[in-house]
This record gives sequence, C-alpha cells and structure tokens, in this order.
Amino acid sequence: MRRFATERVKRLLFGSLLASRSPPSASLCSSPAAAAMDPAAGVVTVDTINPKVLKCEYAVRGEIVSHAQRLQQELQNKPGSHPFDEILYCNIGNPQSLGQQPVTFFREVLALCDHPPLLDKSETHALFSADAIARAWQILDVIPGRATGAYSHSQGIKGLRDAIAAGIADRDGFPTNPDDIFLTDGASPAVHMMMQLLIRSEKDGILCPIPQYPLYSASIALHGGSLVPYYLDESTGWGLEISELKKQLEDARSKGITVRALVVINPGNPTGQVLAEENQREIVNFCKNEGLVLLADEVYQENIYVDDKKFNSFKKITRSMGYGDDDVPLVSFQSVSKGYYGECGKRGGYMEITGFNAEVREQIYKVASVNLCSNVSGQILASLVMNPPKVGDESYESFNAEKNGILSTLARRAKALEDAFNSLEGVTCNKAEGAMYLFPCLRLPQKAIAAAKAVNAAPDGFYARRLLDATGIVVVPGSGFGQVPGTWHVRCTILPQEDKIPAIISRLKAFHEAFTEEFRD
Amino acid sequence: MRRFATERVKRLLFGSLLASRSPPSASLCSSPAAAAMDPAAGVVTVDTINPKVLKCEYAVRGEIVSHAQRLQQELQNKPGSHPFDEILYCNIGNPQSLGQQPVTFFREVLALCDHPPLLDKSETHALFSADAIARAWQILDVIPGRATGAYSHSQGIKGLRDAIAAGIADRDGFPTNPDDIFLTDGASPAVHMMMQLLIRSEKDGILCPIPQYPLYSASIALHGGSLVPYYLDESTGWGLEISELKKQLEDARSKGITVRALVVINPGNPTGQVLAEENQREIVNFCKNEGLVLLADEVYQENIYVDDKKFNSFKKITRSMGYGDDDVPLVSFQSVSKGYYGECGKRGGYMEITGFNAEVREQIYKVASVNLCSNVSGQILASLVMNPPKVGDESYESFNAEKNGILSTLARRAKALEDAFNSLEGVTCNKAEGAMYLFPCLRLPQKAIAAAKAVNAAPDGFYARRLLDATGIVVVPGSGFGQVPGTWHVRCTILPQEDKIPAIISRLKAFHEAFTEEFRD
Repeated sequence: MRRFATERVKRLLFGSLLASRSPPSASLCSSPAAAAMDPAAGVVTVDTINPKVLKCEYAVRGEIVSHAQRLQQELQNKPGSHPFDEILYCNIGNPQSLGQQPVTFFREVLALCDHPPLLDKSETHALFSADAIARAWQILDVIPGRATGAYSHSQGIKGLRDAIAAGIADRDGFPTNPDDIFLTDGASPAVHMMMQLLIRSEKDGILCPIPQYPLYSASIALHGGSLVPYYLDESTGWGLEISELKKQLEDARSKGITVRALVVINPGNPTGQVLAEENQREIVNFCKNEGLVLLADEVYQENIYVDDKKFNSFKKITRSMGYGDDDVPLVSFQSVSKGYYGECGKRGGYMEITGFNAEVREQIYKVASVNLCSNVSGQILASLVMNPPKVGDESYESFNAEKNGILSTLARRAKALEDAFNSLEGVTCNKAEGAMYLFPCLRLPQKAIAAAKAVNAAPDGFYARRLLDATGIVVVPGSGFGQVPGTWHVRCTILPQEDKIPAIISRLKAFHEAFTEEFRD
Repeated sequence: MRRFATERVKRLLFGSLLASRSPPSASLCSSPAAAAMDPAAGVVTVDTINPKVLKCEYAVRGEIVSHAQRLQQELQNKPGSHPFDEILYCNIGNPQSLGQQPVTFFREVLALCDHPPLLDKSETHALFSADAIARAWQILDVIPGRATGAYSHSQGIKGLRDAIAAGIADRDGFPTNPDDIFLTDGASPAVHMMMQLLIRSEKDGILCPIPQYPLYSASIALHGGSLVPYYLDESTGWGLEISELKKQLEDARSKGITVRALVVINPGNPTGQVLAEENQREIVNFCKNEGLVLLADEVYQENIYVDDKKFNSFKKITRSMGYGDDDVPLVSFQSVSKGYYGECGKRGGYMEITGFNAEVREQIYKVASVNLCSNVSGQILASLVMNPPKVGDESYESFNAEKNGILSTLARRAKALEDAFNSLEGVTCNKAEGAMYLFPCLRLPQKAIAAAKAVNAAPDGFYARRLLDATGIVVVPGSGFGQVPGTWHVRCTILPQEDKIPAIISRLKAFHEAFTEEFRD
C-alpha cells in the first residue's frame, strides 16, 4: 500500500520532468494517452525492485571480499603497497583457488567426453589411463546419441543417475531409485528449488541452524519465507539439541508460522561438527513427529578428519530405523564442489528426494524442466564422484593416493589452524571434525567493541577488516552466519596450501597480539 | 485466508490420526506441548506447496513430451509396436539431440581446459589444432591460478568477460564494458534473475509477445508477476506493431498494473521473424518513453536464413540512435545453446546489462553471488562463441566450413518444412527467417475441434497428439506459447537431420490428409 502511495507521489513530482526529456520518436510522444500515463512508476531503482532481493544477504561474498579485491588490485598496481604480498582467500570453500589440484581421473574422463573423437585416436592411449578411456565410453554409451552437447532429461541423464543411485546404495547399504535423483548445477540451485516449492509467504518457516551457511538465509529471504533459527551449542562442540529444536518450533508456531522444513548441515558449515548417529535418529523422529521436511545438506560427506566420527547419510539413518518412502520427506543435497574433489567451478551436484507423493514430485519435475537441465559436464562429474575408480582399475592406486593425500593434508591443516586459534588470547575454537572451516569464538575487549561501534561496524566485522588490512587474510565475520547475541566469531577455511600454513599462523598471531594490545581494556 | 482455514480443518480431521501413527521416539511424543501442536499443517501436498509453482506451465517439456517418452520406451521394449521406428523430437531447440555435431575447435579447447596437463605432452600436437592449444593457454592464463575447478568471480572470469565484450564490440561497432557482462548457466537463469529483480507482486507486469517462448510465462508465474501480452501479427509475418504495444500497456496500466519491462525475442521464438532495424528503433523509443526495461532475447542472433534480413542487437540499435548508458535499461540475453554451435548441454550464456544505476547493479551482483558462479566450461564456451577462430588461424577454414555447413543446412531444412506445411490443406506457415522453428497455423475442421473437446483437449493439442501417435513426430501445441483465441498452431523445430526431412514430410502429409479426411466438416 505504502509503495503505491510513494509511486503516486513520484508521478506527481517527476511526471513533468520526464515529459521534458524530449522522447526522440515524435509519433509516440504525440499520443495524448501516453502523456497521461506515467512511466516513472516503473523506473528501476532500489526503491522499486523486489524487496526480497534487497533483504537477501550473502556474507561469504560480501563487503569484506569486495575490500579484499580492492587490496589485490592495489597490490598488483603497486607491489609493496601493503604489509603482505598476496590476498589469502579463506572466506569461501574454494579449494582449487588456493592451489588444490583436480583429481586426474575425473579430469581425464571429462576431457574425453568433451571431445569424443579423441577416443578413436591411437595417441590417446599415451595420454589417458585405460580406465578413464573405458569410463568415457561407458558414459557416452548412456547418453542418447552420445550427444554431450544436448539438453538432457530434466532430472539429468538416466544412465548417470543410475550410477549415482548405485553409489548411494553402496555408501548406505540401502537401495536407491535413480528416479529420486535430480542433477543440478551444484547444491545451491537444488536448495533454491526446494525453498521455492515449500515457501508460500512469510508465514512459512524453515528451521535453520545458527550459525548457518548463508545460502539458506539468502534463499529463504529471496523466496519470502521466515528463517526459524535453532542454536547449535558451542560449549558441546556445536551440539544439536532436540530440546532446542522443539522450543524454537513451538515458539514459531505460537507466532502463527507454519514450519515446513528443518535444515541440517552435516558435517557442519561453518561449525565443522559431525553428527552422531543417535542424534541423527532423534532428528529424523523429530521431523516425522512434527511433519517437517528434512533438508539434509550433506555436501561435506567425504570431509571427515577425526577417527572417532563417521559420516552417516540421513537416508541411511531413516532406512536403518525401518522408515520407508512414505514416512519422512527427506532431501539430501550433494555437490562436486566439496569432498576431496573440490570441483567448485564445474557446478555439479544432485538432490535425492524421498518421501514426497507423486503429485508433489511432478511439480518438482516441472520446476526442473523450466531450467531444462543442469550442465552435462557437471552431471558426468557427479556420476564420477559417486562412482570413483575401484580396486583393480588401472587408475585406482594413483586415484587413491591423490584422494588420501588431499584428505590427510586437509586434516593436518584443520588441526594446525585450530591449535593456532586456541593459542590466541581470548579465542576458543572447536575442532573441525569435518567440512572445511573453523569458527573460532573471539572474546573481544570492550574497547574494540566500542571502536567498532564508532565506525558503525559489527565487532567481528571490525576484527576481520583489521585482520585483512594487516595480513591479507580474508575471513568472514560470524555475523554473516548468525551467532548467539553478544558472541563474536569469524569463519576461516582450512584450505590454504600446507606449506603456507606456518606463515599464516605467524601473521595471525602477530596481528592478534597487536590488536589485543591496542584495545586492551 | 482460505488456505489457513483449510489447514485448520485438516488439523481437526487428521490430528488424531497422525497421533496414532506411533512415533518411535518415546521421549519426543510424551511431550504435552508436542501433542497440542499440529504437524499436519506443514505436510507437503499439492495443496500446501507454493501456488506459484502450481501455476507455472512449461509446454516445451509438457504432456506431449511425457507421452513421447512412453512411446519411445514401448518401441524399445517391443520394436514394431507403433507405425514408426523412432521418435523425432521436434519439440525443443536441441540440435545435438538430433545429430548435429559439435564444432571441433570449441570442443578441442574445452577438452584442453578440462585437463591442462595435456598441454605439456608432445602427443597433444597430433590430436589438437595449434590454435586450439594456443587458445587453451590464453584462457588458462586469464583464470586465476589456472584453476578451472574453482568458483570464479560471481559475474564470471574477468578475462573471459573481456573476450566476450570484445566480441560484442566487434559485432556492434560500439564499445562494451566487461563489467556489464554476467555469465550464467544458459540464458534461462539470466531471465529468472531479471524477473526476480523486477517483480514485486502480481501488480507488476511484463510485456511479452504472444506467441512467446514459455520460459517467460513460466518465470513470470514463478515470481508471482503478471504477463501482459502483446500480439504479434501473423498476417504480416509475425510483425511487432508499436500500436499494439501501446494498447496493451495502457490497458494493463488501467488495471493498476505497473509494467516493468518489455520482452522482445529477436529472431522470434516460436515465430522465426527477424526484426527490421526501423522497427527496433521504434521499440527502443517506446521503452524509453514508457520507462520500461528492454529484455532482449537475442539467443538466435547467429540463426538467420534469409538474405534480406540481418540481425541487429538492441545494444547496437540504442547506441546508433545516440542513446548512452543512462537512457534505456537494456538486458541482452545470449546463450551457447543456439546459433550454429547448439551446445545446449553445456549451459553457457550471458546477459549484458546496461542502463541500470550503480545501486541496482549491486543488487544484481548480489543475487548472482548467492549462486556463486556459472559453470566454468560454459563460461569458456561463451567466450569462444563470441570470439571464434579468425582468418589466418589454423582452424579457420575447417571451423568456417563446419559453421557454414550447419547454417546452410538449417536454412534448407527451414524452407523444405515451411513448403511442406504450406502444401497441407488448411495450413499456412510463415517463413522462418531466423531461429529454429516453424509455427504453422492450422485451420482445423469443426469436427476435429468437437472431437478434441470430447476428450477434454485443446484442438491443437489433439492434433499434436494424433500426429505423434501416427508418425512419431513430436511438436508442441500452439496453446503452450499463446495464440490469438480461436486460432490453432503447432511449433515444429527445423532440426531433424537433412536426410530425414523427405521422410518426415511424407509422414506429415499422409497424416494430415488422413486427419483432414477423418474430420472433414
């Protein structure tokens, strides 16, 4: 209502101004009807765009990153202009941007599928492993007409979904239906698709962990729903308590919110915890009892760094509890961007959808159809990560060495950075049991908080900005993920190359000591 | 309001039923608060999902295609079970699914970028052209860290945007700013992004041609806006009349609709017309005078089949009229899926955005950021199609032969199918001057219309279904695109391989004669 009133005011204010801007087409502006109408009402400004877009925030690529990009430009234009030589982007889980190499087997298969005439050439055998060649043939044979450049089935190529379903079944020990798989351009579009399906208005709520990965808050804002927060317990290693879920659900319902779904990120982002099986069973029962869709973000399923924890998919948990397809609506998100593969730029991923009735599935299919299909290279890669080389395959040894090399260096980096954060005055940092991040808690001095306030910044944002200016290290303020009010955090990836970690740690320590001295209460 | 009432009723009806479904977790179901709450309100059914999703329709992959897939399955299971050997998918502009081969140079570069270690091997020179190798190096050199597996800048890799901007400038003769380019997973996500930005409620309207490509109606429905139709004039070869635009705009405004944008598809889909330059100037002035964003779907810019027509981008037209960046908000959509390349499965494309203020651009950037980036192979391919081999490059001759071969066979197919449709009793078909479709008008006998009504089908849907059952040819009923009420059409791609066209034409003619005889009034 208010918006329309504003538009009317603008029309009165700017109508004559616009009319005097001499439209070049005489035949058009001579129309009396056009003169009576007011074009200003539709002119695109931040006041007239979709307010949901305005509301949406995405800290992982927010202000701090724009500032880092400016510094990088300055370093390029004038080397030595800052007290560091390079920007270290620890703001986003983007392994290959920090030097992680792609897995050879996967890239061999992708290259062969991109240019199938290679398969007929004798030189190819000198350049590619035999099982990559065999796999490329297998994949081409399941693509209708071997046309890797054709739109595929809206859910993705059936033969690739078969391979993924077999991979899930291997992982979980329970059967998987390839028709439950929707291949997508990474996990993000899949999350958007589910939010689009579930959210009707701001009266629909989605339970999300706090801290959360800001894709969820951004997607809920874009689709006009309400984020219903539940807090993870930092003191128990970011524990997920059912009593907290229950409390927040009831609180939301008492406010008239219809809660549609529960988002669980396991392993956690930004929090790095790996859920225990018993905890997962409780979560499944909670969703079942409360009629919630379980949105299981399982993109870090391969990233586990501690011996006493193991990834269990929610699909496996529900099936092992005896629940079948009619009991719990469950969506599991997986991506080629994470794991040991880290193929963010390929934009591959899938969601496995179970527990929805046929009519609803038809609607999901329709929405997928409007986008035609996800990119076929990403589809192929998703089939590869869910069905990698096996013992006996020519590539197996080297593949396994690459995989284990990446995962073990990530584990060492996680531990080294965790220890470094814990060695800082006033900082405590939970272990990264999994995923790619540390989320240390900063007990900032009152003077620092006041200094932040004076420049109109959140205290953790102020800390992150000072850290960047002093060291070139980019971390994301905890306020971008949500945190218990009055606590301050930053998210830092564990992804810089291992040989750089000691220097990063010294820079971090030196900065933190100086910062603490400067603002000591 | 009504929905909430329905939910209350369900709560009363199903509350006890759900409670009796024995939740396995005793600790949860013993909570009295939980018993008082009602989970049924959130349960996902077609009655409780987002009604915008329900409303959205996408005929290009709709019912007729599902039926075709069933027939294909039946043919596979029982060869000879239908009066044809194969299904001919003429429903969608998907060239490679019908046998078009990818352009060699493009695929060579993609394969090398997928597996850069190839570039260091001597055997590679026997397998790849020298300029593909050089181009792969050039591309890798503009990708930070040569990491083709990293998330890129949210708008796409800067160096690739530079190449695209140079390509646009070459095409148009006017400078292009690489910061105006947003690389996307095909044109569809770019269209969605703009609809998301512009549409606030059903009081916001988007002027769309009728007939239109149903992505527009689907996207407007998903984002909750209003499609404001303007009719193309079939009798003047699908002419776009400014008087019609004006009439529909005024009509919409009189109903309280704020019209935000005008969609123009040039060359037309499904209508195949190529706009004349003078017409484009009128359209630009119309948008300028009326304060509309011009959404220019230019994905068929390479698909022109007649000598007397030429593609002019709206960017070129506006600049040649002397308009600069502040005059007309213009978005040009381009895709790697069409043209002579036809790389639908690669999901590459871009939008070039000019005429928006800095604040609005920041919002567009933010929305792009939430999706991280488009797939890097698609980005590379978009840079290649906008900057293909030039005279003097090793691949130039063969590249040019492939390109011209594809475009000239498409022109011959368009003409042959147009003539065939025009030879049918009661059918008239405009020329496909460009794009990939024919959209013949069917004057169906009253008896056929009555027969359609009897099975609850639209007459053109009835015709398309009978055509499919008799011949295996899949076309899309005109009702999926919109048409003047009381007229009937089908959309048929010009994409079947040339050697199949004579057989298709005989089948089409035989079917149409039989159909006409069966239903002759």
